[in-house]
Amino acid sequence: MNRIVELFKIKYPVIQAGMIWCSGWRLASAVSNAGGLGIIGSGSMYPDVLVEHIKKCKQATNHPFAVNLPLLYPDIDKHVESIIKYNVPIVFTSAGSPKKWTKLLKDQGIVVVHVVSSLKFALKSQDAGVDAVVAEGFEAGGHNGKDETTTMCLLPEVANVLDIPVIAAGGIGDGKAMLAAMILGAEGVQLGTRFVVSKESSAHKHFKNKVVEVSEGDTLLTLKELTPVRLIKNQFFSKIEDAYRKGESISYLRDLLGRGRAKKGMFEGDLIEGELEIGQVSSQMSEILPAGKIVSQIIEEFNAAKQNMNSVKFNF
Amino acid sequence: MNRIVELFKIKYPVIQAGMIWCSGWRLASAVSNAGGLGIIGSGSMYPDVLVEHIKKCKQATNHPFAVNLPLLYPDIDKHVESIIKYNVPIVFTSAGSPKKWTKLLKDQGIVVVHVVSSLKFALKSQDAGVDAVVAEGFEAGGHNGKDETTTMCLLPEVANVLDIPVIAAGGIGDGKAMLAAMILGAEGVQLGTRFVVSKESSAHKHFKNKVVEVSEGDTLLTLKELTPVRLIKNQFFSKIEDAYRKGESISYLRDLLGRGRAKKGMFEGDLIEGELEIGQVSSQMSEILPAGKIVSQIIEEFNAAKQNMNSVKFNF
Repeated sequence: MNRIVELFKIKYPVIQAGMIWCSGWRLASAVSNAGGLGIIGSGSMYPDVLVEHIKKCKQATNHPFAVNLPLLYPDIDKHVESIIKYNVPIVFTSAGSPKKWTKLLKDQGIVVVHVVSSLKFALKSQDAGVDAVVAEGFEAGGHNGKDETTTMCLLPEVANVLDIPVIAAGGIGDGKAMLAAMILGAEGVQLGTRFVVSKESSAHKHFKNKVVEVSEGDTLLTLKELTPVRLIKNQFFSKIEDAYRKGESISYLRDLLGRGRAKKGMFEGDLIEGELEIGQVSSQMSEILPAGKIVSQIIEEFNAAKQNMNSVKFNF
Repeated sequence: MNRIVELFKIKYPVIQAGMIWCSGWRLASAVSNAGGLGIIGSGSMYPDVLVEHIKKCKQATNHPFAVNLPLLYPDIDKHVESIIKYNVPIVFTSAGSPKKWTKLLKDQGIVVVHVVSSLKFALKSQDAGVDAVVAEGFEAGGHNGKDETTTMCLLPEVANVLDIPVIAAGGIGDGKAMLAAMILGAEGVQLGTRFVVSKESSAHKHFKNKVVEVSEGDTLLTLKELTPVRLIKNQFFSKIEDAYRKGESISYLRDLLGRGRAKKGMFEGDLIEGELEIGQVSSQMSEILPAGKIVSQIIEEFNAAKQNMNSVKFNF
């Protein structure tokens, strides 16, 4: 049995990453309706906005969905309260210690998954009692770990050591990569970038178009002294580069980043001054499709790649 | 047909990376005798030393082998002369433009492969007439590219666009990873780290033991202003980190690195002051084995992973 499908009560172990400014109820419900797991990204939502998204998501799908909870969120108590009150069945926690909220959420019957970027935190998460982990590699978009371990290296490490199931994230944009990740030990995959360029994603159309446009080498992990984040190399990114060249201080970098840049870039479509968080796999994106179509394409690609392994090329 | 097996006239598309201080004739001939492709790493050899290694390799194996030629090598003309004179059948070029030597080598009937870390250089290599490319991801050991594209992301990009066959490198340490790489579009794999910890590798035993010891997160890509290089975090690495924290100049970094540090670390076994070049996949290394055994294990693991895909876990 595939434990991820069983754990979440879904058809395919294809999970849409909870992303700030991109994944509201429209995207989450579309993915869940297509047999995957949709996630509402609560990190960019005020408490009342999250409540609205949970309510609308429940109206739009009868299938399980999740909320992503970045543990550094200032009003986290209110988010947790809403998650419990409105019976959200699954929570993905990230960016913080899994010890803090796991027990409380699990006592309410909620399935808890924690996102990690290292073996050490994967083990801590298992000890904290989570049901599964997302092992997220260096190539992933947005905020990332300090060890810079790639999906290819992190995934087998984590899958070999943990007893609980592992979901792969980072560098996965299609069914071929899904199959590769499962061979490396994952039982499910989480895709962010691919769902940013979905019709239902709340990303600004300028940002979606930019993601379709970018080529290999157009993103880089930066601002490692603050929180490492993978960004598209735009004009704002050049300002960061300049600051590094000039040897500016951490507080200069913090001021340069300022507030609201992610919203400006991804939600308001300012491609020049905005912070454009996306994964390396953006170079492989070629079109904007409905989320349900993306899920079915991934499964078709997965099965085709499996079939292709019977070819002579693979026989030794 | 698997084009890599055909191109090199070998049994398995398992290639041992040409590595400074680690891969002489003993390792190369052992890998070739086991059905893979062994490579003599000429980057750390004086011209007469390379000649000796080529002669001994030919005595030790009747199978094809290759020489790796870092194109920045100062005495490159002499190396090329020896390669032609002693009928080396295959050359892997790296760290330079594929335009410079490809035609000359191919006119001598030599198979030429170029190592790249970006799609742009993969296309340039194909245009230059090489027979295949190695697409090397960010997780690889030693010198690396500036784009920081991981194997998971680089490989499908390059394989989708190129007509010539692609060999995957970076993060590949066993047969499972080989299968994953082939699903992502590779027709062969190149392993460095795994062969550093072989009996026949000329690495110092202290270095081999260190590679077996390290855990996830123990390497990092550094010295990006000189040539980016992935190193084990030892005392010398801490000095580099200190220099960055203090905002030291590029020339300070160059002086700090000095000369001969790679030899000191990898060949002489100075784990404190030496430069210890290794891939992220080192965290998965658990023992030192004969190179021939490594090749057969990789193929066994590859076939077992293929077989495992018929399990329920993989069926949707």
